[in-house]
Amino acid sequence: MVLLSELSVVRAAHIVLACTSPHRAGVLNEQVGTRARCVPPGPVAFDNSDVVAAATNKALNVFDKCDPPFQKRHGRPPSLIVGVDTVVSIGDQILGKPETVSEARAMVQQLVDAGSHKVTTGVALVYGNPSGGPVHTQTFVDETEVQLDSKAISDAEIEAYVASGEPMEHPGGYSVRGLGSAFAKGLVGDHMNAEYGFPLHKFLSELDSTRLQAWIDAAPAEPKMPPPEEELVANEPPTSPELDPAVQCEDEQCGLPSD
Amino acid sequence: MVLLSELSVVRAAHIVLACTSPHRAGVLNEQVGTRARCVPPGPVAFDNSDVVAAATNKALNVFDKCDPPFQKRHGRPPSLIVGVDTVVSIGDQILGKPETVSEARAMVQQLVDAGSHKVTTGVALVYGNPSGGPVHTQTFVDETEVQLDSKAISDAEIEAYVASGEPMEHPGGYSVRGLGSAFAKGLVGDHMNAEYGFPLHKFLSELDSTRLQAWIDAAPAEPKMPPPEEELVANEPPTSPELDPAVQCEDEQCGLPSD
Repeated sequence: MVLLSELSVVRAAHIVLACTSPHRAGVLNEQVGTRARCVPPGPVAFDNSDVVAAATNKALNVFDKCDPPFQKRHGRPPSLIVGVDTVVSIGDQILGKPETVSEARAMVQQLVDAGSHKVTTGVALVYGNPSGGPVHTQTFVDETEVQLDSKAISDAEIEAYVASGEPMEHPGGYSVRGLGSAFAKGLVGDHMNAEYGFPLHKFLSELDSTRLQAWIDAAPAEPKMPPPEEELVANEPPTSPELDPAVQCEDEQCGLPSD
Repeated sequence: MVLLSELSVVRAAHIVLACTSPHRAGVLNEQVGTRARCVPPGPVAFDNSDVVAAATNKALNVFDKCDPPFQKRHGRPPSLIVGVDTVVSIGDQILGKPETVSEARAMVQQLVDAGSHKVTTGVALVYGNPSGGPVHTQTFVDETEVQLDSKAISDAEIEAYVASGEPMEHPGGYSVRGLGSAFAKGLVGDHMNAEYGFPLHKFLSELDSTRLQAWIDAAPAEPKMPPPEEELVANEPPTSPELDPAVQCEDEQCGLPSD
């Protein structure tokens, strides 16, 4: 259990998020002052119905990518790798990212008809140094309910939302950020999860600070570490020509190209 | 009822927020693409227990400030003035901004003991051109419940939060943004209200687009309008020496100096 009392440990850690979403790293960096960076995982097999398995696979994939050359480039090995996978669902039905405008329209209509849907995020915390030593993985799930103001959302409203193009960027064709926020009557649960696909409260409360401190201590003396912004710019521009489009994860919650 | 289907009207409007909080204007500008600007109200008598009256007084005060010189400076008269007032409460007890560290500690402890508290925002929409013509005022209230993870928030956690200095900037000594987000188990209600003291969904759904369009049409042909950023910088730096400290509103939700 960490929250804020051991924030110095969290801030001292070299946290790597196994995704391309700068928004997710932004939640950590902006709200609690960490210097987390994103590293896109390679192709990862996953089943949308198991966010924990998908998050774990992403984290372990990135764990392998954090090899000695990576560590040399960034001054030190990671002390924690965080895999994240988010899905949007109505009951048992998981909604993917719409591929056509008409699919987007149908999905938004479905969310409006349902009145509420869920944003579920699986998180995998992988502690350890990829150069060697044991690996410990810890997982959890968080879920936020999003309630739409169905009575107020007419066909014309749905049409206006679809015409904005925003639905094409989000699973379920909808996000509580941006124009979509106009449709949301309310949330029940972690707002950071609904907005960014990163359940900050649960992340901090689940974090094992003793284990994290052990990996911080195990890292060699730190030279200088480039600011995470540089890493984000250098490693994962949304339109990076180096990123194989096939090498993308289901990191759709943030509305950015996924890894 | 507006939401997104008449967004062109909302975006065409010259919206003035009667407060100093760039965060509140930011909610409108960033989420729905308006060009709202903030104008700080002068000294306004208000009773913390009546957020609607406080919001109305702020809006009417700024209405008077939007005189012909203001209109000349900004290219056109406002078409909508939005007064906003937010309070934090536990049951019937309203919590102000703490004045001392020990008061902050006691307030945070009180929120943790209560488990949940409310963020209530009163909004007043004043349509019309201050140069003349009838004024129409419309008001509403929105409320979001904030649930803290009381079991996880030990004395050491409270101490860490108080030591960060953040509680001193917020009514009730707490905000769901920043480090405070670590304590929040979840919200029930509009997340924009809890985060920024601006209930975006209800603002859009209550907005009278026909009335708004009438005031847009009544405005003289628009020359060029400076971007709202310039206005924010020019008129309301948080530490502006031109702002009389006595001329402050209860605009505490955003954690910035209030007007």
